Amino acid sequence: MVLQALHREAGLARVVVTTLQSVSGSGKPGVEELEAQTAALVAGEPLHAEFYPEPIAHNVLPLCETFRDDGYSTEEMKLALETRKILELPGLDVAMQCIRVPVPVGHSLSILVETQKRLDPDAARRALAAFPGIVVVDDPSRNVFPTPARAAGRDEVLVGRIRRDLESDRLWLFVCSDNLRKGAATNAVQIAEEMLRRGLC
Amino acid sequence: MVLQALHREAGLARVVVTTLQSVSGSGKPGVEELEAQTAALVAGEPLHAEFYPEPIAHNVLPLCETFRDDGYSTEEMKLALETRKILELPGLDVAMQCIRVPVPVGHSLSILVETQKRLDPDAARRALAAFPGIVVVDDPSRNVFPTPARAAGRDEVLVGRIRRDLESDRLWLFVCSDNLRKGAATNAVQIAEEMLRRGLC
Repeated sequence: MVLQALHREAGLARVVVTTLQSVSGSGKPGVEELEAQTAALVAGEPLHAEFYPEPIAHNVLPLCETFRDDGYSTEEMKLALETRKILELPGLDVAMQCIRVPVPVGHSLSILVETQKRLDPDAARRALAAFPGIVVVDDPSRNVFPTPARAAGRDEVLVGRIRRDLESDRLWLFVCSDNLRKGAATNAVQIAEEMLRRGLC
Repeated sequence: MVLQALHREAGLARVVVTTLQSVSGSGKPGVEELEAQTAALVAGEPLHAEFYPEPIAHNVLPLCETFRDDGYSTEEMKLALETRKILELPGLDVAMQCIRVPVPVGHSLSILVETQKRLDPDAARRALAAFPGIVVVDDPSRNVFPTPARAAGRDEVLVGRIRRDLESDRLWLFVCSDNLRKGAATNAVQIAEEMLRRGLC
């Protein structure tokens, strides 16, 4: 959604993204493993890693899903291919690294975007704020920014830290959304609603 | 160190980095706040955020240190300026976003590097492995990669997930090191040792 809003405004040229993905993205076993390891940490007991290859509590793992033979994870390839498909930009240059973080719910993305036309941070902020379902959460002077904890339980996508790169016209962004709602259930409901509205089902 | 190894081999052109920094980077108050909030989570009690602007346990914050008027954090500016100074590359193009993660010790960096000469992942791996103080931890087929938990307590810098970007000659890397040792105390000792060796003190 964030990329679509920027694409409409200035055309996407190139995207670099590092994701910080919550354990609920791997389903119930991920959530249960983080819970069990967190309890073990507090109890001073050793951490058992069963579902993930290493403990995820108080750690981060540069692996989401499984590795392919070329060293990319299946999640990284999905990120690139699904982004191109959904945006209908089959040639979009998306460079990506996906990381699992010890967060129960809420995926975060650290994104550097290069647009075809120069886009000022203020113009980007306006375009993002006007896009249905996006909320701009961006007031550094008051320490206001998106976090997965803020996004959890909400249907909107939060975006902040919108600023120009120091050395180029590229823009930095930090995006958080509830991966169970907007990343899955809410999105399915919204697509069904739209299909009903259009008389497609 | 990782950038220096790649620079010697192929010349650095451009770097994009997202950091995932541990709470010990903010000193003892950060570690104590993560500990207290983790205990509160397990006890089912509300989380009190005193040192950081929001809870850090089971969350990530796109803020290290404090925000400047231009929307960059002081840590982000240090990352760019100190990298240029240490590498003696005053014009190096470094784009950066710094994020605090609920990890006690061990900073991680998700890095996309563009080199002046094309550098194959295998050549990069060899150059990194030959650099004193760097350990290549990179065997995706066995789920072997750097993590902050693996780096904590060690003097070496761990690097893995070394692979070519899908759409360009750029290289992806994931780097972890102990921010208290290699990021501070070990480095100070190593510099003092080097000064002694050179008769500078």
